[in-house]
Amino acid sequence: MKKIRIGLVGATGYGGRELLRLLAAHPGVEVAALASTSAAGEHISEVLPAFRGIYDLAFEPFDAAALAQSCDAVFVGVPGKASMEPVAALRAAGATVLDIGPDFRLKDPAAFRQYYGVDHTAAHLLAESVYGLVPQYRDAIRNAKLVAVPGCYPISILIPLIPLLDAPVDWSVPPVIDSISGISGAGRTPSEAYHFPEMNENLKAYQVGGHQHIPEIEQELQGRTRVQFTPHVAPITRGILTTITLRVQKPFDPAPWYGQWQNEPFVRVLGSGILPEIKYVRASNFCDFGWVMDPRTGNLVIVSAIDNLMGGTAGMAVQCLNVMFGLDERTGIWFGGMAP
Amino acid sequence: MKKIRIGLVGATGYGGRELLRLLAAHPGVEVAALASTSAAGEHISEVLPAFRGIYDLAFEPFDAAALAQSCDAVFVGVPGKASMEPVAALRAAGATVLDIGPDFRLKDPAAFRQYYGVDHTAAHLLAESVYGLVPQYRDAIRNAKLVAVPGCYPISILIPLIPLLDAPVDWSVPPVIDSISGISGAGRTPSEAYHFPEMNENLKAYQVGGHQHIPEIEQELQGRTRVQFTPHVAPITRGILTTITLRVQKPFDPAPWYGQWQNEPFVRVLGSGILPEIKYVRASNFCDFGWVMDPRTGNLVIVSAIDNLMGGTAGMAVQCLNVMFGLDERTGIWFGGMAP
Amino acid sequence: MKKIRIGLVGATGYGGRELLRLLAAHPGVEVAALASTSAAGEHISEVLPAFRGIYDLAFEPFDAAALAQSCDAVFVGVPGKASMEPVAALRAAGATVLDIGPDFRLKDPAAFRQYYGVDHTAAHLLAESVYGLVPQYRDAIRNAKLVAVPGCYPISILIPLIPLLDAPVDWSVPPVIDSISGISGAGRTPSEAYHFPEMNENLKAYQVGGHQHIPEIEQELQGRTRVQFTPHVAPITRGILTTITLRVQKPFDPAPWYGQWQNEPFVRVLGSGILPEIKYVRASNFCDFGWVMDPRTGNLVIVSAIDNLMGGTAGMAVQCLNVMFGLDERTGIWFGGMAP
Amino acid sequence: MKKIRIGLVGATGYGGRELLRLLAAHPGVEVAALASTSAAGEHISEVLPAFRGIYDLAFEPFDAAALAQSCDAVFVGVPGKASMEPVAALRAAGATVLDIGPDFRLKDPAAFRQYYGVDHTAAHLLAESVYGLVPQYRDAIRNAKLVAVPGCYPISILIPLIPLLDAPVDWSVPPVIDSISGISGAGRTPSEAYHFPEMNENLKAYQVGGHQHIPEIEQELQGRTRVQFTPHVAPITRGILTTITLRVQKPFDPAPWYGQWQNEPFVRVLGSGILPEIKYVRASNFCDFGWVMDPRTGNLVIVSAIDNLMGGTAGMAVQCLNVMFGLDERTGIWFGGMAP
Repeated sequence: MKKIRIGLVGATGYGGRELLRLLAAHPGVEVAALASTSAAGEHISEVLPAFRGIYDLAFEPFDAAALAQSCDAVFVGVPGKASMEPVAALRAAGATVLDIGPDFRLKDPAAFRQYYGVDHTAAHLLAESVYGLVPQYRDAIRNAKLVAVPGCYPISILIPLIPLLDAPVDWSVPPVIDSISGISGAGRTPSEAYHFPEMNENLKAYQVGGHQHIPEIEQELQGRTRVQFTPHVAPITRGILTTITLRVQKPFDPAPWYGQWQNEPFVRVLGSGILPEIKYVRASNFCDFGWVMDPRTGNLVIVSAIDNLMGGTAGMAVQCLNVMFGLDERTGIWFGGMAP
Repeated sequence: MKKIRIGLVGATGYGGRELLRLLAAHPGVEVAALASTSAAGEHISEVLPAFRGIYDLAFEPFDAAALAQSCDAVFVGVPGKASMEPVAALRAAGATVLDIGPDFRLKDPAAFRQYYGVDHTAAHLLAESVYGLVPQYRDAIRNAKLVAVPGCYPISILIPLIPLLDAPVDWSVPPVIDSISGISGAGRTPSEAYHFPEMNENLKAYQVGGHQHIPEIEQELQGRTRVQFTPHVAPITRGILTTITLRVQKPFDPAPWYGQWQNEPFVRVLGSGILPEIKYVRASNFCDFGWVMDPRTGNLVIVSAIDNLMGGTAGMAVQCLNVMFGLDERTGIWFGGMAP
Repeated sequence: MKKIRIGLVGATGYGGRELLRLLAAHPGVEVAALASTSAAGEHISEVLPAFRGIYDLAFEPFDAAALAQSCDAVFVGVPGKASMEPVAALRAAGATVLDIGPDFRLKDPAAFRQYYGVDHTAAHLLAESVYGLVPQYRDAIRNAKLVAVPGCYPISILIPLIPLLDAPVDWSVPPVIDSISGISGAGRTPSEAYHFPEMNENLKAYQVGGHQHIPEIEQELQGRTRVQFTPHVAPITRGILTTITLRVQKPFDPAPWYGQWQNEPFVRVLGSGILPEIKYVRASNFCDFGWVMDPRTGNLVIVSAIDNLMGGTAGMAVQCLNVMFGLDERTGIWFGGMAP
Repeated sequence: MKKIRIGLVGATGYGGRELLRLLAAHPGVEVAALASTSAAGEHISEVLPAFRGIYDLAFEPFDAAALAQSCDAVFVGVPGKASMEPVAALRAAGATVLDIGPDFRLKDPAAFRQYYGVDHTAAHLLAESVYGLVPQYRDAIRNAKLVAVPGCYPISILIPLIPLLDAPVDWSVPPVIDSISGISGAGRTPSEAYHFPEMNENLKAYQVGGHQHIPEIEQELQGRTRVQFTPHVAPITRGILTTITLRVQKPFDPAPWYGQWQNEPFVRVLGSGILPEIKYVRASNFCDFGWVMDPRTGNLVIVSAIDNLMGGTAGMAVQCLNVMFGLDERTGIWFGGMAP
């Protein structure tokens, strides 16, 4: 079988590294080109010693036309706000693009400006961009030329919430969503906040009420509710645990509503009273979730878990790729959780 | 100055060890006796090598009369449900007791039975027991003979919530309280769940809607509301970070309400938009908290932080002791956070 | 291609779990049977939630004849001293066996008795057992019916030391080998020593001068030297970092001696002054090592790194399997280090 | 009692913070002035929120004369090579100085130049500088005007080695010293190497054969031997575990040699076969060590443990201060290990 030729732009960030890790063992692809601004000219084994012996490639400066010509699909893994331009150039050159950053997720450029603080310079592509949440948009992804891979927090939130949109939930009360993320979600740039002695043995909340994933979550909940989203960080490398508290109109059994996901290979609906743990999804593409209906308070509490770098980014991106190129969706990402 | 003679019952658990750590450097006390069921007959330097050279004491079997006679105050640090009997015996022998376990916190024996699963065998002492939350009950503690040191989660929740009981909060909607605790809160008994390779790099929620601290919290909120309390664990040793989401009747400034705590030596009200971190309270007796009023959702989000073993247990217990014996409350516990 | 049918005995231990994780994505194998004493009768998704949805298998009691008949190869992953009997039964039934425990590594039953404290009950199999260090014994492994997968510490030690046996090293001075291991190496059984709050933020050495891997190391160094082996543990889940200090007859360049490994897919010789890190081999099958020749002291200091569960156990076992069944050695284990 | 007035120069680094933590609860001192280049003009509660409410002080620019006048003793906690000038200025102004950095530890300016890469600009003070290893130099410290607090690694190495200088050790073979340090030892400046996701779950060796503590160690071993010192880092915040392998002329009992330390309050000689752990010295001023004599190899293996920030830096500095001002040496630092 002819292998899908893959290009990566921004391959030295954490999302890009995870893509490189997964693609090395993916039987249907070949990594053909790596582009990086910071590492152009250097060999991968110097910049990313983890891949010494796996890839014999050097990083090149970004060249949209060359990538479009040499690659069947290009992953873009640059920081937020920095993918608008290269993605536009790649699309103009005819490339099929999967962007793992946030720039093409929001349909409304005003929301982008509000939460990201800049104007969108490629708003003409927002219409063709497909939100790459495979369970929800599989058919559209199949024919997409531009996929915006969802954010890590949103994946952990939307998978358990979307099926409940028509359930007897009181959506007039904003769901309270408290997520806890590993530090890889903050990216590879060193900072005082995430210097090891500062973050080890530490916990904190941040961006309360103002995180840039809020409009993405509310968009995919079809504007049915506002969400009270409070992200936290814990001293682990990978993983997001999300606890969602919903007010219900009356106690009900959520299980039937989740029948919608019953054939999803990477969604594991654990059931009532069975709660997920990061370890069971670590280094996997799964989203696990369970719940407790609490009649004492009139709330439904749902807890979900993903690996932010794999199920929350690179694994979901590869699943999109598999869908787009007609492969078994599980190819290259069919791993159970790495526990321990 | 004559030193206060202290006895410890159950000194090998994590709460007891933290008491031993603090009391060694406390200028106003002398540890006179250690009782332990599991370690009776052994020298402290064998059982707790951290204290080799600090204490020259052996563990003795529990003897209420002897402790009452030789000690001015006795700390009891045995697991939940196991302190009812020794505390009753100590009180019967005339001892002044500070119980760091949960047995004498709930005023209602029915709530105790419901959440702890057993009948209270010393319910006659519940009336004289004083809930040892110093900022709230300082005067009662001063004259108490039996102090029930509050639970760790409740301390992190009550300090920021009690002053708001008459604020324009919509208490008809149960506050959503998502706490994250370090693993020392689970005690010293090994288990598969907290075996290092199982818990390292892991996160999970547990006892959703059914944690035994719920009745304690609701009692101290004067029955004004039910709470949706979801405890989580993260792979750190010490610390509790609590995020509380309240629905408000209308946006308001919480700062004036917290004037109530302005002279509290161990409560640090950080203010709007300033959020606490575990590292700033680690190995300290402080409770730090800040908040964000979110007009977009109509919620007030409060985040608090304590060290569960010190500010959440042993430090609060020493603060009670200082109050009871007329010492400066800060004696022996006047430490900033250990960061790093 | 017909898939190799695999049986696992003792699949709930950490080595067995890692085998299950790797075999799920291995394109040439099918896991046909799981045997477990502790979990017999239970479904894998209850016992090992990480594999929910990946495997639809229940654990069965151990039955050597059934395994021999239904499987092309059987991995045995039970604790030390517990594999002698099942391996003997499996071999008697004609099965091809890969034992990831220590029971069939030592050629000398007296050494086994000395270091493991029991008599070997299947010493008749020691002659046919092949030590599964692929780079050293590839040809013998190809035809083996019983492979003893090497210990994790020995792999990290032997890969850098074997090529130097004839180099100008002063072997009369025992090499000083200080290894640091993650806690998964201690297995899945909870203990006070590895209870999270006891081991987190901790470091210690153990079994100084008496670790059971010493005879295995010295055997594979052909009895040319005794080793001073001091294992340490650090609060990480996976990984072994080994620092070896050798006295040299005179300073020399080790690089040419390592030409012996130049075609090894999973040995990465980093060179002089380039030192390995756990993160670059985590969740990979690589053994990385580099060195510093220190003329000031007359020593050669070598540092190596492996993932104890993968490159140190299950990955090496799969590499053996690939060799035995004529597959590309890299099949199913061709991953770079998981960093982060 | 009149309190000793203390100044701190460079109080925002990790050593300085630990001094601030200890001095807050030290009954014999008062922190009178804080100088910092990076934080001049800011209040301590903004820069170091851990000390909010504890200290009501602002950072000032460095002014040697003012500090000399207002303080009885000045701690200097700036990075290596940066203390030469301020210490010289302070001494010229008549201040009593305790430098926790390396600049005044080496008696030989040539060694300083070799290992630190710059000329010593205050070499005239090297003669008066006293190496602040209290157990070894107590009498000299008592009258010192300039104390160079020892390095963290050297403390963990010298305490167990100095008493053996005349024991039947073969000092012609360089001791092999493999130390493992927590990351706080690398200081507060963020870097890619110690960015949380890079260092968490990681282990590595560094500066093999060339660490700047080598000349300090060899100086204090009176030039009797060269040492093979290999430092490692592990993902913990605090602590150094040091493993020292010595060749012996013949097996002997080290215990009598350690009689030299029998009255040292902060040295705990554990004995043969009893090994230290970081947790037993964490947040304490103790140096614990034990050993194994291995007749099979002809080596003595010693393992020691300290908290690098307290017993390895700030605690030792306070012990020096106590000695210098005639206080009980244990004042303010009499803590057992913080376990957990």
